[in-house]
Amino acid sequence: MRISELSQRAGVPVASIKYYLREGLLPAGRSLSRTRSEYDDTHVERLRLIRALLGAGGLGIAQVRRVVDAIDDGASERLGVLAAAQHAIPPVTEAPPPGMEAAPSEDSRPSRARDWVASRGWSVEPDSPLLDELDAAWLACDDAGIGLDPERLDAYADAIEQIAAIDVATVPPQPSSAVRQVILGTVLMDPVLALLRRLAQQHRSIRSSEDGER
Amino acid sequence: MRISELSQRAGVPVASIKYYLREGLLPAGRSLSRTRSEYDDTHVERLRLIRALLGAGGLGIAQVRRVVDAIDDGASERLGVLAAAQHAIPPVTEAPPPGMEAAPSEDSRPSRARDWVASRGWSVEPDSPLLDELDAAWLACDDAGIGLDPERLDAYADAIEQIAAIDVATVPPQPSSAVRQVILGTVLMDPVLALLRRLAQQHRSIRSSEDGER
Repeated sequence: MRISELSQRAGVPVASIKYYLREGLLPAGRSLSRTRSEYDDTHVERLRLIRALLGAGGLGIAQVRRVVDAIDDGASERLGVLAAAQHAIPPVTEAPPPGMEAAPSEDSRPSRARDWVASRGWSVEPDSPLLDELDAAWLACDDAGIGLDPERLDAYADAIEQIAAIDVATVPPQPSSAVRQVILGTVLMDPVLALLRRLAQQHRSIRSSEDGER
Repeated sequence: MRISELSQRAGVPVASIKYYLREGLLPAGRSLSRTRSEYDDTHVERLRLIRALLGAGGLGIAQVRRVVDAIDDGASERLGVLAAAQHAIPPVTEAPPPGMEAAPSEDSRPSRARDWVASRGWSVEPDSPLLDELDAAWLACDDAGIGLDPERLDAYADAIEQIAAIDVATVPPQPSSAVRQVILGTVLMDPVLALLRRLAQQHRSIRSSEDGER
């Protein structure tokens, strides 16, 4: 199909398609002449994926490129497909804006995240950037006066382990599909889980206020 | 204290403090002269909160303003503090970038999110924007080829209900503290939970690949 039909089938404007081609998010079509190319169903599917990652996934162009590159590369399997795919997943937390970085002295503080993970008995790569992110997120809770102690983290972790068990159980056996599933399942399911949390809070809150009226 | 000491104690540059004052995120200090003001500990605390929300919370300036306004206003309690505070919490998902919006025809499709919430028996405001966000996030999973069926959503929801129970149980009884706790606990704990999910995936993945080697 030509670019106009691709645009129509994927629901993405031609100008955006040309931008994704230039940025390397979308593989080039088969060249028909100097100015015309032929696209196929893989391009439609890739455009839907880009739209999902930019929209609901909340990723930027550079992060989307990293994700599609990892999907195209398939799996490296030293730590299992799942852990390997995690390296292509963008960080959970944004880098702090300029002037908002934590004071350098805090780098020498012991890592509460590492202590907590060890006490929980989780097998995690000791140099995983996830642990530094968890330390930073924990510090942000302190700064905001939200009491997050190891006991509360453990209570959350009991529930999160069930979620991770579902995640791992639904990974397909073929390495190439597995990497795709892990990356997309993580990035696109985060907002679903955050929404379920708010809905469940609302449900419990409405129910408990009705109980209070009795 | 003067602005220079405030800057030092909160670890925020003077230029940023002036910006937050102009943007209405930080209340004005007590005016000493046309160009000098006196600040106190409430300003230090507010600056730490702003830093936490902009950094780990990943919010923009406009979203931070909405959050601090809600905290300052205290609670409206028609639906319970928790549900009321949710209105001040920024949406989970970003609005799609220009040209990436879903086709308008999809608006007339039935709401899977509403059907699923009803089947689960959750009490949720029927016009809650959370339900529209869940429909959009679900559609993004479809677009990316991630199988999210109501059964998988139910399995996730079983675990999420435990998280929401912890959230609700840790809300303090005073309405003004409660609103603050709910908003910050939701915004700042989302990244913590997302990080726990990745760490728990890694743990299960490393453990199951070790099991496979035996």
